[in-house]
Amino acid sequence: MAGAFLVALDLLGTFVFALSGAAAGVKSRLDLFGLMVLAFAAGNAGGISRDLLIGAVPPAAISDWRYLGVSLLAGLATFFWYPNIDVRRRPVLLFDGAGLALFAVTGTQKALAAGLNPVMAALMGMLTGIGGGMLRDVLVNETPTVLRADLYAVAALAAGVVVVVGHLLHYPSFAFMIVGALLCFWLRVMAIFRGWHLPLASSRAQRN
Amino acid sequence: MAGAFLVALDLLGTFVFALSGAAAGVKSRLDLFGLMVLAFAAGNAGGISRDLLIGAVPPAAISDWRYLGVSLLAGLATFFWYPNIDVRRRPVLLFDGAGLALFAVTGTQKALAAGLNPVMAALMGMLTGIGGGMLRDVLVNETPTVLRADLYAVAALAAGVVVVVGHLLHYPSFAFMIVGALLCFWLRVMAIFRGWHLPLASSRAQRN
Amino acid sequence: MAGAFLVALDLLGTFVFALSGAAAGVKSRLDLFGLMVLAFAAGNAGGISRDLLIGAVPPAAISDWRYLGVSLLAGLATFFWYPNIDVRRRPVLLFDGAGLALFAVTGTQKALAAGLNPVMAALMGMLTGIGGGMLRDVLVNETPTVLRADLYAVAALAAGVVVVVGHLLHYPSFAFMIVGALLCFWLRVMAIFRGWHLPLASSRAQRN
Repeated sequence: MAGAFLVALDLLGTFVFALSGAAAGVKSRLDLFGLMVLAFAAGNAGGISRDLLIGAVPPAAISDWRYLGVSLLAGLATFFWYPNIDVRRRPVLLFDGAGLALFAVTGTQKALAAGLNPVMAALMGMLTGIGGGMLRDVLVNETPTVLRADLYAVAALAAGVVVVVGHLLHYPSFAFMIVGALLCFWLRVMAIFRGWHLPLASSRAQRN
Repeated sequence: MAGAFLVALDLLGTFVFALSGAAAGVKSRLDLFGLMVLAFAAGNAGGISRDLLIGAVPPAAISDWRYLGVSLLAGLATFFWYPNIDVRRRPVLLFDGAGLALFAVTGTQKALAAGLNPVMAALMGMLTGIGGGMLRDVLVNETPTVLRADLYAVAALAAGVVVVVGHLLHYPSFAFMIVGALLCFWLRVMAIFRGWHLPLASSRAQRN
Repeated sequence: MAGAFLVALDLLGTFVFALSGAAAGVKSRLDLFGLMVLAFAAGNAGGISRDLLIGAVPPAAISDWRYLGVSLLAGLATFFWYPNIDVRRRPVLLFDGAGLALFAVTGTQKALAAGLNPVMAALMGMLTGIGGGMLRDVLVNETPTVLRADLYAVAALAAGVVVVVGHLLHYPSFAFMIVGALLCFWLRVMAIFRGWHLPLASSRAQRN
């Protein structure tokens, strides 16, 4: 039951991240197939990295057909409806934020289940969240949003911390997963619409 | 016998991909050693990724000296003969296409031997084919040919599918590997010389 | 005893590489958290790659808290003192050289301990040394210093070879590790201050 819930969240995260990957592919004028590859990479690179690091080989994204299916579906949807979907840049950012939130909580939960200590489990959740976006941006030669965007990695980590706290308190995991995901998404929304951000190092002020 | 044939094809693929990596290194004005590193990376990143994902650790490219030797040979050959080899851009693209074809079929075959299901085996073949070129392009900060080039990843996947079909029909694997490799190479040649390509998403037409 | 010495060198290498990663993050105007991520990536990507390739899962950087702690410390130090630290570009290059030297020797030693053959152990040392810098540069979209810088990968390999020679002669490993690290650092210093470099392929001379 909890396992099915975890997989469903994970597949949903894969779908929205694959959408963001496919949208980046369209922007870079990739063909249909390159777009599919980028959708799969963006949707699954974070989870694959996590699985390699915690020793869960072969990774779920390789052994379970549904991750591939969901990624291809997202790629096809983007291919056919892209002009209607991406009128401005914000929808892509919101998809991205939703995928980040879902991956951060499912990644943390999987790392806890694999027996990692709480600090590292939260970091694995963050990696799951930011890994796909990092690979997507590196592949289309863009400046990596993941490192530059306001409250990005930190939002993913916050979600991971919420899940870990729930785990340490022995509360039901899915409640804390939902709270963590909502917190992460809310932080990203604040960053996108209100411009919330962390401080930059002081070099800028002194140099300009 | 079949094993030796597989290794020979794999080493040949490593050689031609290492040539393409070294040629990209010369273009980016890397020194002799950086060129060797890029030759090794381009020649072996796809196979190493595949081996990590299917749990074959340490990867063949690390445990078997010949992959290193073949890569260094390709690096040296490029270093000394580059001006004669690369008069125009097309020879590099043809080397690249041949390496893609060889890697796609050997990668699929190895994944089948490791017990992966047919769909994933074909995708692992594609990854073996495009992984080295992706890393090569990312490292020299070029737009990744692998995602942008016409019929690139799709050609690798076509080769993988041919090998998988042969496997499912219990035909001798090397016949289907040769057919798959020729199909992949022919698709790339058509794309390079005739401009064959897959459709782009419709955004371009509507925006320009 | 030898184990503690190895870990101490490894943590020191992580610290100086994390400094170089954080400095690159400040240059690219990442926020505090992105800077931490880049510090961790630069400090640990080489070691994590090596551990994945030799099958030591989960990698030390994931299972041992100290690698994370040291990386965050370096990130914080850079964040607060950056204007004082990086007056010119050379200090960053020297930190980088010191990290390279430490990682090359500890990486080689770990690969030998894992039972790899001498040639591959030296190459794993080189990978440990250059992996973090490669990821750092790819993430901030810079031309990879690692491949372009004079005597970079070759200096790391030289350190690895020294360690391997000591291992084959059954000499005490830490003496050869110190010699190897000093050789690597000295080669980098000569490259930075005296412009030592390896030959480029002849294409440049013929084309300009």
